[in-house]
Amino acid sequence: MRLSQYYLPLQKNISAEIKRVSHQYSIRAGLVKQNTSGIYTVLPLGLRVMNNISNLIRKTMEDISCIELLMPCIQDSKLWEQSERYDAYGKELLKIKDRHGHEMLFGPTNEELIVDNVNGYLNSYKNMPLSLHHIQWKFRDEIRPRFGLLRAREFLMHDAYSFDIDQEALEVTYKKFMSAYIEILTQIDLPFVIVKANAGEIGGNLSHEFILLAKDGENTIYYDRKIFDYINNKNTDKIINCFAKTDEMIEQSKELVSDEMARSQGIEVGHIFAFGTKYSQSLKLKYLDNNGRLSYPYMGSYGIGVSRLLAAIIEASHDEDGIIWPKSIAPYKYGIISQKNNLDASLELYNTINSLEKDQTLIDDTGDNIGMKFVKMDLIGLPYQVLASKNYSETKIIEIKERATGKKHEIHQNNFSEFMNKLS
Amino acid sequence: MRLSQYYLPLQKNISAEIKRVSHQYSIRAGLVKQNTSGIYTVLPLGLRVMNNISNLIRKTMEDISCIELLMPCIQDSKLWEQSERYDAYGKELLKIKDRHGHEMLFGPTNEELIVDNVNGYLNSYKNMPLSLHHIQWKFRDEIRPRFGLLRAREFLMHDAYSFDIDQEALEVTYKKFMSAYIEILTQIDLPFVIVKANAGEIGGNLSHEFILLAKDGENTIYYDRKIFDYINNKNTDKIINCFAKTDEMIEQSKELVSDEMARSQGIEVGHIFAFGTKYSQSLKLKYLDNNGRLSYPYMGSYGIGVSRLLAAIIEASHDEDGIIWPKSIAPYKYGIISQKNNLDASLELYNTINSLEKDQTLIDDTGDNIGMKFVKMDLIGLPYQVLASKNYSETKIIEIKERATGKKHEIHQNNFSEFMNKLS
Repeated sequence: MRLSQYYLPLQKNISAEIKRVSHQYSIRAGLVKQNTSGIYTVLPLGLRVMNNISNLIRKTMEDISCIELLMPCIQDSKLWEQSERYDAYGKELLKIKDRHGHEMLFGPTNEELIVDNVNGYLNSYKNMPLSLHHIQWKFRDEIRPRFGLLRAREFLMHDAYSFDIDQEALEVTYKKFMSAYIEILTQIDLPFVIVKANAGEIGGNLSHEFILLAKDGENTIYYDRKIFDYINNKNTDKIINCFAKTDEMIEQSKELVSDEMARSQGIEVGHIFAFGTKYSQSLKLKYLDNNGRLSYPYMGSYGIGVSRLLAAIIEASHDEDGIIWPKSIAPYKYGIISQKNNLDASLELYNTINSLEKDQTLIDDTGDNIGMKFVKMDLIGLPYQVLASKNYSETKIIEIKERATGKKHEIHQNNFSEFMNKLS
Repeated sequence: MRLSQYYLPLQKNISAEIKRVSHQYSIRAGLVKQNTSGIYTVLPLGLRVMNNISNLIRKTMEDISCIELLMPCIQDSKLWEQSERYDAYGKELLKIKDRHGHEMLFGPTNEELIVDNVNGYLNSYKNMPLSLHHIQWKFRDEIRPRFGLLRAREFLMHDAYSFDIDQEALEVTYKKFMSAYIEILTQIDLPFVIVKANAGEIGGNLSHEFILLAKDGENTIYYDRKIFDYINNKNTDKIINCFAKTDEMIEQSKELVSDEMARSQGIEVGHIFAFGTKYSQSLKLKYLDNNGRLSYPYMGSYGIGVSRLLAAIIEASHDEDGIIWPKSIAPYKYGIISQKNNLDASLELYNTINSLEKDQTLIDDTGDNIGMKFVKMDLIGLPYQVLASKNYSETKIIEIKERATGKKHEIHQNNFSEFMNKLS
């Protein structure tokens, strides 16, 4: 993409009330624009990151045979009355009346609706295990929305739902999702831990949170350094017994914090629940088991806040100059900086990289001076800043700077692909 | 995808109140499920079609440098009060109050919000022309929702917005979008015409509708057979003067219908508007022109109902046995039918086709009998029904039946790719 033809509204001056670094950078780097309290437009560069996160989730869900569908934003209040959450959910539930006075709501989660969807189909033990997921906009009417996409009212969420014949089968599925979520966060390549959690209003007794470590995170986490290494090296066998703890849990259990425990702040980005028959019972979802008896499926639900994760990644990966996108979800992999006297050479380089890796390069071909262009490139945080060398058209030498480390490389164009493969 | 591991809830018995064929087939073929009046879940097979339509639109928008962003579902009422549409839009506008009593709405269209987004950035003639689009869920609170996705309350829409320095530049952009929409519908490969339309509540004086021809369409259309051929053969030069007419227009103008006019029913699937400065004026979007004077950008808006188009395609392309998906947007290209005595050979064939064309094959590996499997395959309408021949493991002969024509072919596996390329 040529920046001169793109829509990237970078912001120099932002409100002093914007305190969180992810909120600051997401506005300054032209990723989002607030339209009203807690409601944002995702701008083109931000959309590319959000789509990359969504596609990473999609791929991992495919790997565990969790099938994608798409449920609507608006739900009927009746289902929520049946599950007794319509009033219990509290004021964060955005209630809506249609022109006929019929009560509806903008879904903050979809346990009721997924049961409504499979009811009539999931009537035999032969249809299970079944897992379905979608990636859709949700709404939680936060009393005081703040921190940008970290706590927006309208937010994009991946949520999955599983159906099993009994508690034992549910726990097998639950571990499969836990491993899948570990895989997703491992691919993003930022440190995270898992915390045993309370199920809250979803119900049930088995629940875990996935916490991305970040200096200014909302939660304080204690974790065994060994466990942390274990999780982040993808050794997911038996990890169900290896978890981090919040400061609240440490306080309650009056546990002593040993020297082997590391302490960090963190941000919740995923949450999984095994709640059994709570919703299948209240919404009358029954199946015939292999003895011909009517039973209720055992359910779990699993969620990652996609737009929230985008912001959490910025919290976890930035410096004073801007964002440092992990390669797996960066909006573009390469950012070419052209200079006034080498625009043609830079465009030649742009075409060359495009022919090697399609649609992974943003070229700053605007009239800004070179200093400003480096400032912009640091701010938007593409993994590799690329320049055509002085006599590029003859020498085909490319200059590459790694955004994360500042390391510089000079390589011949013919070695570009091989070199980049080695780097990543 | 193996059907035994998929979620495809086909329906045998549907309500007698469901009259439209697209509504019937979309429920029977497991594409959608109604959750409440006018609100649907898009099931996995339907989602694949919807994504194919969206991606076709995305690609064509990229070709005309129209950049994708993503605006939220919920909008602030203030913007609509400024444009004087908050009350004028009528009861189809779903109004919502948040927990603080603040008035919001579920967007049925985004003219106001796109202006809010570019305000502060689009302040110079140098930033134009600019075109932005998104694909997002919209809501229109229809008094009597019916006909499934053809007239749903919550629906997926692609809508684009353009900004130009004056009327002349706007008309150039307008023609560019008209050509792009012709390209999209041409790719879908079903007959369509263009009708000059009233701009209605959007405002402005230049507006056209894109109508897919379908036996049970809502509109009656008269068109010159020659013009029709012209459009559908992608000769888009000067087509701005070559349009079809509705029966209403014919009546009003007391025009005689000549023998060269063909008559058909049709369904509106796209709509384009050039409305000038209506929204830039009311929402105070100003730019400095090249003489340093403050002016209002000239705007257009362009939309295709993605979920509606899915249903319209079924209306335009089906027979008494089921849907006939055009190849460009079919959920899968190939449907393999396995028999009890050749499941292994069929799975071998499945793996072979998958290795040639990734993720384009659905295999019916369920325990249903062969007759039922053909009925299901006809219903879901994949372009090619594929069977492993009697001694496939030795002979590698594949049997192919075209869904649209019923034509049958027997070919050797080694010639499969070449043969399929010739067919499409």
